[in-house]
Amino acid sequence: MNFNANGASNINIAYIGGGSRGWAWSLMSDLAMEENMSGTVRLYDIDFNAAKDNETIGNSLYNMDEVKGKWKYEAVRTLEEALSGADFVIISILPGTFKEMQSDVHEPEKYGIYQPVGDTIGPGGIVRALRTIPMFIEITENIKKYSPNAWVINYTNPMTICVRTMYEVFPGIKAIGCCHEVFGTQKLLMHALKEIKGINAESKDSIKVNVLGINHFTWLDSASYKNIDLMPVYKEFVDKYYETGYLENKEENWIKNTFVCAHRVKFDLFRRYGIIAAAGDRHLAEFVPGTWYLKDPETVHYWKFGLTPVSWRLKDLENRLEKSKNLVSGKIKFTLKQSGELGVKIIKALLGFRELITNVNFVNRGQAPDLPKGSIVETNALFSRDSVRPLFAGCLPEGVRSLVEPHLANHEIILDAAIHKDKNKAFTAFINDPQLSRISLDDAWELFNSMLANTKDYLPGWDI
Amino acid sequence: MNFNANGASNINIAYIGGGSRGWAWSLMSDLAMEENMSGTVRLYDIDFNAAKDNETIGNSLYNMDEVKGKWKYEAVRTLEEALSGADFVIISILPGTFKEMQSDVHEPEKYGIYQPVGDTIGPGGIVRALRTIPMFIEITENIKKYSPNAWVINYTNPMTICVRTMYEVFPGIKAIGCCHEVFGTQKLLMHALKEIKGINAESKDSIKVNVLGINHFTWLDSASYKNIDLMPVYKEFVDKYYETGYLENKEENWIKNTFVCAHRVKFDLFRRYGIIAAAGDRHLAEFVPGTWYLKDPETVHYWKFGLTPVSWRLKDLENRLEKSKNLVSGKIKFTLKQSGELGVKIIKALLGFRELITNVNFVNRGQAPDLPKGSIVETNALFSRDSVRPLFAGCLPEGVRSLVEPHLANHEIILDAAIHKDKNKAFTAFINDPQLSRISLDDAWELFNSMLANTKDYLPGWDI
Amino acid sequence: MNFNANGASNINIAYIGGGSRGWAWSLMSDLAMEENMSGTVRLYDIDFNAAKDNETIGNSLYNMDEVKGKWKYEAVRTLEEALSGADFVIISILPGTFKEMQSDVHEPEKYGIYQPVGDTIGPGGIVRALRTIPMFIEITENIKKYSPNAWVINYTNPMTICVRTMYEVFPGIKAIGCCHEVFGTQKLLMHALKEIKGINAESKDSIKVNVLGINHFTWLDSASYKNIDLMPVYKEFVDKYYETGYLENKEENWIKNTFVCAHRVKFDLFRRYGIIAAAGDRHLAEFVPGTWYLKDPETVHYWKFGLTPVSWRLKDLENRLEKSKNLVSGKIKFTLKQSGELGVKIIKALLGFRELITNVNFVNRGQAPDLPKGSIVETNALFSRDSVRPLFAGCLPEGVRSLVEPHLANHEIILDAAIHKDKNKAFTAFINDPQLSRISLDDAWELFNSMLANTKDYLPGWDI
Amino acid sequence: MNFNANGASNINIAYIGGGSRGWAWSLMSDLAMEENMSGTVRLYDIDFNAAKDNETIGNSLYNMDEVKGKWKYEAVRTLEEALSGADFVIISILPGTFKEMQSDVHEPEKYGIYQPVGDTIGPGGIVRALRTIPMFIEITENIKKYSPNAWVINYTNPMTICVRTMYEVFPGIKAIGCCHEVFGTQKLLMHALKEIKGINAESKDSIKVNVLGINHFTWLDSASYKNIDLMPVYKEFVDKYYETGYLENKEENWIKNTFVCAHRVKFDLFRRYGIIAAAGDRHLAEFVPGTWYLKDPETVHYWKFGLTPVSWRLKDLENRLEKSKNLVSGKIKFTLKQSGELGVKIIKALLGFRELITNVNFVNRGQAPDLPKGSIVETNALFSRDSVRPLFAGCLPEGVRSLVEPHLANHEIILDAAIHKDKNKAFTAFINDPQLSRISLDDAWELFNSMLANTKDYLPGWDI
Repeated sequence: MNFNANGASNINIAYIGGGSRGWAWSLMSDLAMEENMSGTVRLYDIDFNAAKDNETIGNSLYNMDEVKGKWKYEAVRTLEEALSGADFVIISILPGTFKEMQSDVHEPEKYGIYQPVGDTIGPGGIVRALRTIPMFIEITENIKKYSPNAWVINYTNPMTICVRTMYEVFPGIKAIGCCHEVFGTQKLLMHALKEIKGINAESKDSIKVNVLGINHFTWLDSASYKNIDLMPVYKEFVDKYYETGYLENKEENWIKNTFVCAHRVKFDLFRRYGIIAAAGDRHLAEFVPGTWYLKDPETVHYWKFGLTPVSWRLKDLENRLEKSKNLVSGKIKFTLKQSGELGVKIIKALLGFRELITNVNFVNRGQAPDLPKGSIVETNALFSRDSVRPLFAGCLPEGVRSLVEPHLANHEIILDAAIHKDKNKAFTAFINDPQLSRISLDDAWELFNSMLANTKDYLPGWDI
Repeated sequence: MNFNANGASNINIAYIGGGSRGWAWSLMSDLAMEENMSGTVRLYDIDFNAAKDNETIGNSLYNMDEVKGKWKYEAVRTLEEALSGADFVIISILPGTFKEMQSDVHEPEKYGIYQPVGDTIGPGGIVRALRTIPMFIEITENIKKYSPNAWVINYTNPMTICVRTMYEVFPGIKAIGCCHEVFGTQKLLMHALKEIKGINAESKDSIKVNVLGINHFTWLDSASYKNIDLMPVYKEFVDKYYETGYLENKEENWIKNTFVCAHRVKFDLFRRYGIIAAAGDRHLAEFVPGTWYLKDPETVHYWKFGLTPVSWRLKDLENRLEKSKNLVSGKIKFTLKQSGELGVKIIKALLGFRELITNVNFVNRGQAPDLPKGSIVETNALFSRDSVRPLFAGCLPEGVRSLVEPHLANHEIILDAAIHKDKNKAFTAFINDPQLSRISLDDAWELFNSMLANTKDYLPGWDI
Repeated sequence: MNFNANGASNINIAYIGGGSRGWAWSLMSDLAMEENMSGTVRLYDIDFNAAKDNETIGNSLYNMDEVKGKWKYEAVRTLEEALSGADFVIISILPGTFKEMQSDVHEPEKYGIYQPVGDTIGPGGIVRALRTIPMFIEITENIKKYSPNAWVINYTNPMTICVRTMYEVFPGIKAIGCCHEVFGTQKLLMHALKEIKGINAESKDSIKVNVLGINHFTWLDSASYKNIDLMPVYKEFVDKYYETGYLENKEENWIKNTFVCAHRVKFDLFRRYGIIAAAGDRHLAEFVPGTWYLKDPETVHYWKFGLTPVSWRLKDLENRLEKSKNLVSGKIKFTLKQSGELGVKIIKALLGFRELITNVNFVNRGQAPDLPKGSIVETNALFSRDSVRPLFAGCLPEGVRSLVEPHLANHEIILDAAIHKDKNKAFTAFINDPQLSRISLDDAWELFNSMLANTKDYLPGWDI
Repeated sequence: MNFNANGASNINIAYIGGGSRGWAWSLMSDLAMEENMSGTVRLYDIDFNAAKDNETIGNSLYNMDEVKGKWKYEAVRTLEEALSGADFVIISILPGTFKEMQSDVHEPEKYGIYQPVGDTIGPGGIVRALRTIPMFIEITENIKKYSPNAWVINYTNPMTICVRTMYEVFPGIKAIGCCHEVFGTQKLLMHALKEIKGINAESKDSIKVNVLGINHFTWLDSASYKNIDLMPVYKEFVDKYYETGYLENKEENWIKNTFVCAHRVKFDLFRRYGIIAAAGDRHLAEFVPGTWYLKDPETVHYWKFGLTPVSWRLKDLENRLEKSKNLVSGKIKFTLKQSGELGVKIIKALLGFRELITNVNFVNRGQAPDLPKGSIVETNALFSRDSVRPLFAGCLPEGVRSLVEPHLANHEIILDAAIHKDKNKAFTAFINDPQLSRISLDDAWELFNSMLANTKDYLPGWDI
């Protein structure tokens, strides 16, 4: 790296994954729009051709006029090549294929278990974790070997377990997990402020929140805009929209767009616990007993959020691959757009050129005093030169904590089971999950076995 | 109190409760059979006549030849009279009547929730806790006022919450909770030793165990008889009897005797977690998701344990009241018999005349490092003069801990809800319980309301 | 309070103390120079006339052209009047008079104990604490009664014990302690950056540091300017100036100005422990064994820092009183000048109009994981609307921690002794201090008694 | 090992050290007097001839009539031979020779620092630790390799650091440290009971005490004989003998016998802190600032305890070697005598044939909640089959804790310094010691260097 007054050149970024295109293009766009930083991005994917395509697309930006940050992209064939000399490592992989994800999400439906996402917890999240952990063990061992001082930014789900695995394998790693879910709730608070008080906040960043909990089950116990306490504002807002739900974009529709929700789960949780759940309803619903919001499709319909089928993801991927082809061939031109992800801002802060306070998934050093030390929690942190310092977040209300903590406990069992390829232990984690508490031990065992069988290509060494 | 070489006279014991006779008579019997201790037992019950009957019965022992410990019994009308000057306080109350217990145990059956006991956790245990906590607040405030230095021994359920309440109200209290459930597992280990190794242990006390967990969901991670490690012995025993179950007394039958179990739940938990669950199966089944062992009466039948109906308890009480009448009238004579309860031995140890190591429900000062500080845990402790010192018990396997900890978290919510008469908070605890995770939020709310209504005589000040 | 877009009017500040003028005038100046905030400052001092003079002086600013923030000053006769309705409370008292401070600082010299400051720890600091604690108990009880929601900013020494006392008396208080000592080290780092790298940092705020430790014995384990790691820069700086010491202002002289130091103690501690001590050498020297830097005046001379005699403070006070007279009479005019203290910026942040990260003395919630929970530590914190959130600061090197922790332990003993007026306990704290370890128990007892006698007017109820 | 009803045969004990004879003979004697246990003791000493002599002496017991426990002794030349197959390991080594101990104890006298023992803390203890730690690293690495399941009993000083080192090197080790110092205080309490109450306790074991603190600086906060609280009894006893001191054996004399003390330090500490210091005064005096009881030989004389010169130890060793020669040659016959050490009773308990509660040096798992987790503390523990379980000991009064904790902190620095052969770090520990706080940094550095030079044969790899 070479430094200048306000930035750096010759920065080396290793990008692990990206074959599914979406996240890789976001990064390219964000890097291109940032002044004062330049360097090389080495692209590694188990599908080398995908990396190669991204190389072509990335390099096509270099000479575009509107591009301020000049970066070279280089597809590589090994983790060693990607990581050696890296200043930053970005991980955004799809663990397995959509075939395995199909099983994760939909196999449990045979037993009446519906999952809106199925990549974090629940039967789908747990089985996904079992095949993701070995991948993260391998990646981390390579980081330890080839770039132990690099900062590692993970976008892969299940976020908490991915980051936890990295610290288990290499306690000295400098790794964080980034997720945009909280931003959505900051935007919702902007709407609440507008609806209730008639005030337009300038941006989501002007909504100051205290973040606590774990990824996709994150909470806000205080929120402010300048001198205004947003907690009572949000209460009024919930009272107004509790029954109907609220849609930011009136054109959007949670029935058609399976990613959209009307925030009714969020509102219901607020009434129950008094603090603000800060993730999409699709995620939130998976963390509480399945009978609450996921009993059956009618219940989901009643609470107004979507169940995202894997078929949609397949279709979406097809579109992206089509677009990739056209970008590679030059048929269409890359359009710059702020992704809304924080990765590039974080890199700038870690280089020392700005301070940044935002939420992050990080080892609990005491910032969440009511959650286990060493677990991965999501709170605000201060990013500065070569440093991520969590802010003391305080305690969750006991009612919320009692929903959060069991997942962290379960993560430890899952990680242990994955490391030791211990099917019995993995099953004890499986039946701990609140989505599983509705079915019998025998049914759970049957489901578990068929899900493992469906993902067995990614469970080498397991006795399945 | 007056001391002599091996014991004491003029000991004052306050006995709170006892109207249901059983526990009171056990104490009378144990006191009568213990040399070197004598004094007065003041009997307080909200049913003064019941106390009066016990007074008559207790005093009838005084001149019996076989009685070694001479005690006077005295029914009193107020807690102040009972407690003033007390050296020891024994609490064994029935919170409410069997009418309320009828609702606790059987109302949830309308929603498919079956509870073998219903007095510890589950919907029944939670509602029982809500009406018990105010009683313990009152008792504790009186102890603080009239006998702050007395040792308090509780036998009332829900044990954990009762003891927890006392420390919340009066942190300086010297209170413990005693329960005989673990003894049953020590006896089972004697049988295992005999069956597998052909060795007769002299008594359950010769089976040395390390106790950890919480009341009625207690675990043993080591067990020994002299130089013999009983863990592999128990494993063989489980392998032998996993399918059939094991009955200590072949004449007994878990179908007829609703208190009996064939230990199949215990065996199943052992296979799952590798350590020994040390309570009756009826209790154990209530602590795990309802679908495991309590899905429906057939499942209960399959696992071979009894569901104790309140009708049985009513019949049993009738018998005891009949017996009481006959004892009071002198028609039948009181028979001395060791109760198997430790109360009197504990008193002797607290007076300094012996050392005793046994399991006890006590504030977690660190003896259970993986459970919250300040919660009530069950571990071994050393009893000596004016002192109860927990032994360091170590950690539960993470799989078991993940089943135990949520109950402790829930206890805190229940206690808080009871203190503040906060129905909303009580409901958040209610739906946290693993028996409730099978029914919908609406059904749970309906059930909760009807159960509260059924117990409303004991919830003054609540907005029900 | 009334809010507008970027600030507030009708803010109520209670100012406790200020009779010695210096801090009160700093506040007046800072308030006057801050736009967008206005309101009333109620001045309370045990010397009502001093408060009255400050009222006159403060109000003289109101119509000055260059004044942007318009404040009314009002001397009041009771804490109740000062505190009722206060949004902020500022405490800056002199505990006792210079007569008592004379004893604190100079009485120990009879036993060979030299103290450069004598207001924090050491024999002087301990005795000062004993008389300060009752004052803070009284103030805090009044805050609890009259302004429980106000933010309380303390400037009084001994800082750590003052803040600790407030949380002991009223755990719900929102109190912090502010001190400028760390800023001096940030300025020193600016000099180091200039001397070693030839780079001019724009301001001390551009020097980013991680702060850990306790007030006046604060440490930096990382320091950055933009992308530059200042730790190796400081190492070079120390190597260059270890022998000669370094004076920021060449005209200044630590021999003439008893407040100045040449940083040799700081440099020596850096060599010993590898991290940067961040307070004046006069303070630092008091926290380590007396034989290190305070053995005798020659040793002090060798290490090139001043011993501040109370005679100097008396003279300085005289000057200020003289100036006060002239300001009151209008003979001289108040000159606006940024004080360098953060109080007003902190107020603005707590009102929600900016975010601010700076070091602060605050309850250890876990931000300093190697120091006792609940003790008062100095670390960075984020100030925002109605919120002070510590940043996780990490651990001190064990060698430094072993110097810091005993002082925190001793503070607890001192607080306990002061609350219970327990002379024996106070003496156990006294002989724990590293300045006392050089003299015999008998001499220590003699010194302790004479110092208590000298301050007995402020120790009502003590058996001296 | 082979088990029978009440004991075991073919037990393998590895005895490391013993060249100085005393402890080895104690073990021989205790083993010989214990029924139901037999086996082999393998003797390893860096002086093989010393081990060989012990072999001859040990085997001479085999056919003695009064010997109940039949053991074979076998000198071996390597740790591997000693440890392979060992059930128990006993460590009792002299780290270095009396030449190094001469420097440890007496070199500091040149700077006015007098040490009564010099083997635990203080300049002597610290330097002794520096050369002992590498020895314990080597021993522990061999235990990990050759007998990882053996129970390890250490008698070597500095006790705390030796045990701490073993857990650092091999966290899974089953090691404890045994010391008889507390027994002496139990005996003193017997005398107090007799003197004040006229009651003869049957044995020191009938004096029940709660032990807390660290080795040689151990404390009792409760003590009982049957129903009698011994704390007020001890208070009266202290009042009676505070000035004169108390000698158990009137013929003994602390002036002539450098191991004897009149307990005046213990009495003074009791008055100061309200709890009972439970070690010899010679040890206690070393843990507090040197000016208290060790200012100079006159002060020592005033407090009535002995300074044990190394010359005495040399003379004593000579006697033992002479005795050894005569035992080997058969000129004199071995006399059986209970040593008063607990080693053999502990072995019996760990085999499962009795339960034993006694004090032990063990890893702090939470039994001493106010001292650092993982440090080595001395509290009571329950010994049973393959298990040492600490009893919860509670907290020290803050005044005592503030004297204890800095030593534990310093131990960590010393251990770290020894592992990394880091002279600078070792010196920071050196100047932390309360005996060093009286001399200047320059003198301390000079003393440190000469002490290291004197022990350099045992500091390979150090840059001295």
